Amino acid sequence: MRPETHIALVHHPVLNKTGDIVATAVTNLDIHDNARSARTYGVASYHIVTPLDAQVELVSRILGHWRDGFGARRVPTRVDAMNLVRVSRTLEDAIAVIAEGAGRRPIVVATAARRLPGSMTYGALRERMQNEPGPYLIVFGTGYGLSEAIIGSADVLLEPIGTPEDWNHLSVRSATAITLDRLLGER
Amino acid sequence: MRPETHIALVHHPVLNKTGDIVATAVTNLDIHDNARSARTYGVASYHIVTPLDAQVELVSRILGHWRDGFGARRVPTRVDAMNLVRVSRTLEDAIAVIAEGAGRRPIVVATAARRLPGSMTYGALRERMQNEPGPYLIVFGTGYGLSEAIIGSADVLLEPIGTPEDWNHLSVRSATAITLDRLLGER
Repeated sequence: MRPETHIALVHHPVLNKTGDIVATAVTNLDIHDNARSARTYGVASYHIVTPLDAQVELVSRILGHWRDGFGARRVPTRVDAMNLVRVSRTLEDAIAVIAEGAGRRPIVVATAARRLPGSMTYGALRERMQNEPGPYLIVFGTGYGLSEAIIGSADVLLEPIGTPEDWNHLSVRSATAITLDRLLGER
Repeated sequence: MRPETHIALVHHPVLNKTGDIVATAVTNLDIHDNARSARTYGVASYHIVTPLDAQVELVSRILGHWRDGFGARRVPTRVDAMNLVRVSRTLEDAIAVIAEGAGRRPIVVATAARRLPGSMTYGALRERMQNEPGPYLIVFGTGYGLSEAIIGSADVLLEPIGTPEDWNHLSVRSATAITLDRLLGER
């Protein structure tokens, strides 16, 4: 059974280096790399979350280029990936869109680079996803990570990506790829 | 036992869309993302392979900024990652540097997005790396993949990253992260 899985990349509310709540800028490569990872692992949709008008506009322009414009003609396989991308102004908006499509609210999974109390292992979540119908929404933060408000309202907290060195400053693009591989990759 | 592992990102000789041998441009984010993944998984060095003077110069400038310059002061954790990066003009040069440091030639592992005859599974390579002393050098291609010459001279060919969809157009940054997680991640 393939679990219906969605991902979200949150640009607000996230933390900055000093722990303040900020809105980060959307980056072109976050859109592309995560869309390609999403498509590769059969993810149903990829939500870019940003409340800022200019950023919503920017994402729409990039998507147009790669879905219908010159980019689509130059790299046709990219269309499949870019078709998964949505823009939402808040995480709740993304949850509502997924809930409307699936007929039920997704199980929201928050990720973090640090260990959170009560966090679930990758193995345990993978097993749950095999056995309990979704949809699942895996949420990634930009900047220095998701705000307490998002973490507090998630249904599941996922353990950090453990490493031999216990040094984890992975890019959010790399963390997303590894997370999808651990949860959805072939075994 | 931790296997001594190195990675290389090859910009020449690689294939373009139509199968010609080309040199691709080094990108800033390939340096950063892969350096961060390398540091996270305890990789010993990360070799950027490019024969072009201007590109060697560019990488050196970026490294200076992040090792000793403003970047190092702004994001101190990045220094640890950027200190792993080396620039080599050919893959053979990178192999020679690793061989000199380790006292023996590395076992060279070529990666590809398509299945190659005689390729080894991730599980089998992971096990070999646990049991047979390295060093190991995992080689990634930019553009449309490593040239036949590099693939033909490698000691091991690694299977492609398998996916539920059998659609694999991952970015090389994502593919590197997933590969390191599969070979060196905690289990």
